[in-house]
Amino acid sequence: MLNFSFQNQTRIHFGQGQISAVTNEIPLDAKVLVTYGGGSIKNNGVYDQVVNALKDHTWFEFSGIEPNPKYDTLMKAQAVIKEHGIDYLLAVGGGSVADGTKFIAAAALFEGDDPWDILVKQQKIESALPIGVILTLPATGSETNTNAVVTRDGNKLPFSSPVVRPQFAVLDPAVTLSLSDRQISNGVVDAFIHTMEQYLTYSVNGKVQDRFAEGLLQTLIEEGPKALQPESKDDLEVRANIMWSATMALNGLIGAGVPQDWSTHMIGHELTGSYGIDHARTLSIVLPAVMKVCQKAKHGKLLQYAQRIWQINTGSEDQQIVQAIKMTEDFFQRMGMPIRLSDVKLGEADIDLLLAKLESHGMLELGENKAISLAVSRQILTAAL
Amino acid sequence: MLNFSFQNQTRIHFGQGQISAVTNEIPLDAKVLVTYGGGSIKNNGVYDQVVNALKDHTWFEFSGIEPNPKYDTLMKAQAVIKEHGIDYLLAVGGGSVADGTKFIAAAALFEGDDPWDILVKQQKIESALPIGVILTLPATGSETNTNAVVTRDGNKLPFSSPVVRPQFAVLDPAVTLSLSDRQISNGVVDAFIHTMEQYLTYSVNGKVQDRFAEGLLQTLIEEGPKALQPESKDDLEVRANIMWSATMALNGLIGAGVPQDWSTHMIGHELTGSYGIDHARTLSIVLPAVMKVCQKAKHGKLLQYAQRIWQINTGSEDQQIVQAIKMTEDFFQRMGMPIRLSDVKLGEADIDLLLAKLESHGMLELGENKAISLAVSRQILTAAL
Repeated sequence: MLNFSFQNQTRIHFGQGQISAVTNEIPLDAKVLVTYGGGSIKNNGVYDQVVNALKDHTWFEFSGIEPNPKYDTLMKAQAVIKEHGIDYLLAVGGGSVADGTKFIAAAALFEGDDPWDILVKQQKIESALPIGVILTLPATGSETNTNAVVTRDGNKLPFSSPVVRPQFAVLDPAVTLSLSDRQISNGVVDAFIHTMEQYLTYSVNGKVQDRFAEGLLQTLIEEGPKALQPESKDDLEVRANIMWSATMALNGLIGAGVPQDWSTHMIGHELTGSYGIDHARTLSIVLPAVMKVCQKAKHGKLLQYAQRIWQINTGSEDQQIVQAIKMTEDFFQRMGMPIRLSDVKLGEADIDLLLAKLESHGMLELGENKAISLAVSRQILTAAL
Repeated sequence: MLNFSFQNQTRIHFGQGQISAVTNEIPLDAKVLVTYGGGSIKNNGVYDQVVNALKDHTWFEFSGIEPNPKYDTLMKAQAVIKEHGIDYLLAVGGGSVADGTKFIAAAALFEGDDPWDILVKQQKIESALPIGVILTLPATGSETNTNAVVTRDGNKLPFSSPVVRPQFAVLDPAVTLSLSDRQISNGVVDAFIHTMEQYLTYSVNGKVQDRFAEGLLQTLIEEGPKALQPESKDDLEVRANIMWSATMALNGLIGAGVPQDWSTHMIGHELTGSYGIDHARTLSIVLPAVMKVCQKAKHGKLLQYAQRIWQINTGSEDQQIVQAIKMTEDFFQRMGMPIRLSDVKLGEADIDLLLAKLESHGMLELGENKAISLAVSRQILTAAL
């Protein structure tokens, strides 16, 4: 196990009806800005629950935070914050709303010249407005972690700071019942691949971390498809298990003390940035190719994955691994996800642009061993054709 | 899954050499009281590391906190705190030192008439001195949780409060290399049974919680015996996996959203209180008896435990369960633990006293279903003869 420091102080309120916990989480004298996306929360009852929870608070709202939240959109919130003296942000939505709200919170108290520097220069953030999150789409883990990704002009740029970790997060699985199949699929596969990025590296004999990761993978494999099937899609227990898995997949715990990869995400970001493909759908295309191209470097963990997750115990080690990759692809397809560039109408002609983007974003040494050069990224994208 | 709220804000520094992190964790203007036990930290190098980490701090020390820390001992610290204006406590030791320090921290700022009321009347604590922990014996999870147990006149009394949760905990597996076999055995089995108390109840389909618990049980079963074997007892990876398992076993996570039992602990406390038997050694005696007597109520989880932890898949369900209980007892014995009252020279004649103690402590409805009456506790103790 590697040395590590770990802390996650976000208070979690999990379960049906927990949105009411917001009332006591946000100080009564705070001026609250409720941030959300395209307005689906007005159709599924969540907005009404928020209105009820904040009925004794002073609050305002800022809507229109889009998937892969845009810098220009988020900067518009600054005027609202200044006008009303906002001192608490309540994000109501999925990972994009949470991520966008983190950037809004950081930009509001940013003391540098230009908030853009937070992203483009990775300038350190000293403080941010406090944030609470009501999660409506389990996927990114953003509700309890320190990470966010913001898009500008086709560039997806991440930042991370302890000061933007939410104070609290409400996880009510009932609010996920109104999600579309596509949103559910994206969320389940996003959480699955977050787990894989922290698991599928090389072994440092972190037995707890490995088994926790495997527990999340197994749960997502079992419960994900049920959330799409007519006979079980309204099952709150299925939704609860998916929701808790997605939070645990990226709250820092399973990645503490073990190497991490994240090459699938970095390559995937370029597919979203250049072609607007849903984040999770880029991951389901890239991960199988990473598994194939990095089969040697990841041999030990791939074999463990084959045996523990897919119960593959016959054939040579390499055969077991090949079968496990195939079963991973089958799982993604069962979740309605693309697994090849051709599934999203991209081909060999697009690879040069993607590599140029990777290069321009400094993605020259990806992976747990920093061994994924641009040349290896080309192999990965080629394997994904 | 049951509704829950969860937060654990303790910062963890894990790994060899991490005691130096204390320097930056405790404010330089704090007046620190270092609390510890019988002085083993002076022989294993830990004390010297603490001295070095605090070389620019103002600090004092309070030693002599015994296993199952005594109220009278802990109250003696109050004079030291007042004399020097102590405003930060640094506990250096195992669960007893951490528990005792939590009580010292609470008593120091207690505004009621008598700190004894914290234990005997469960009077609410509004504030406590901040605590840091350098853990030397992985077992109780006290280093990141809100619980403590204090003993007075043969009565073990628990209390719990969010204000006594440590600010930080240092977990350096290297410091556990000097532990005796008995301390290691006690720690591993304590952590194992903490996990079981939160796992072996009835299913609420909490898949993540179940699998996390199972991951801890499997890790402790694999690594525990290695820490006793000559060829592997100096293996830092073994110690690291045990240490991280013990912390995760009782930091609130695996118990969030699922029913909990704790009858083994409550019955075990009377064995320690009346006969001075090591805490963990009471648990290894009581748990198998609880498994046998509560076999019907715990049928589903016992079967899952048999199949997932011990890979028992043949025979009737009841046969599988009986075999799993036997394998649990074998594991405890492999760890050098007693599994019967007779192993610690107790017999049928002692049961009446233990039941009287349980009654006097209000332990009339134990277990996840509150179904363990005094009569059932008698069956359990009889099954443990």
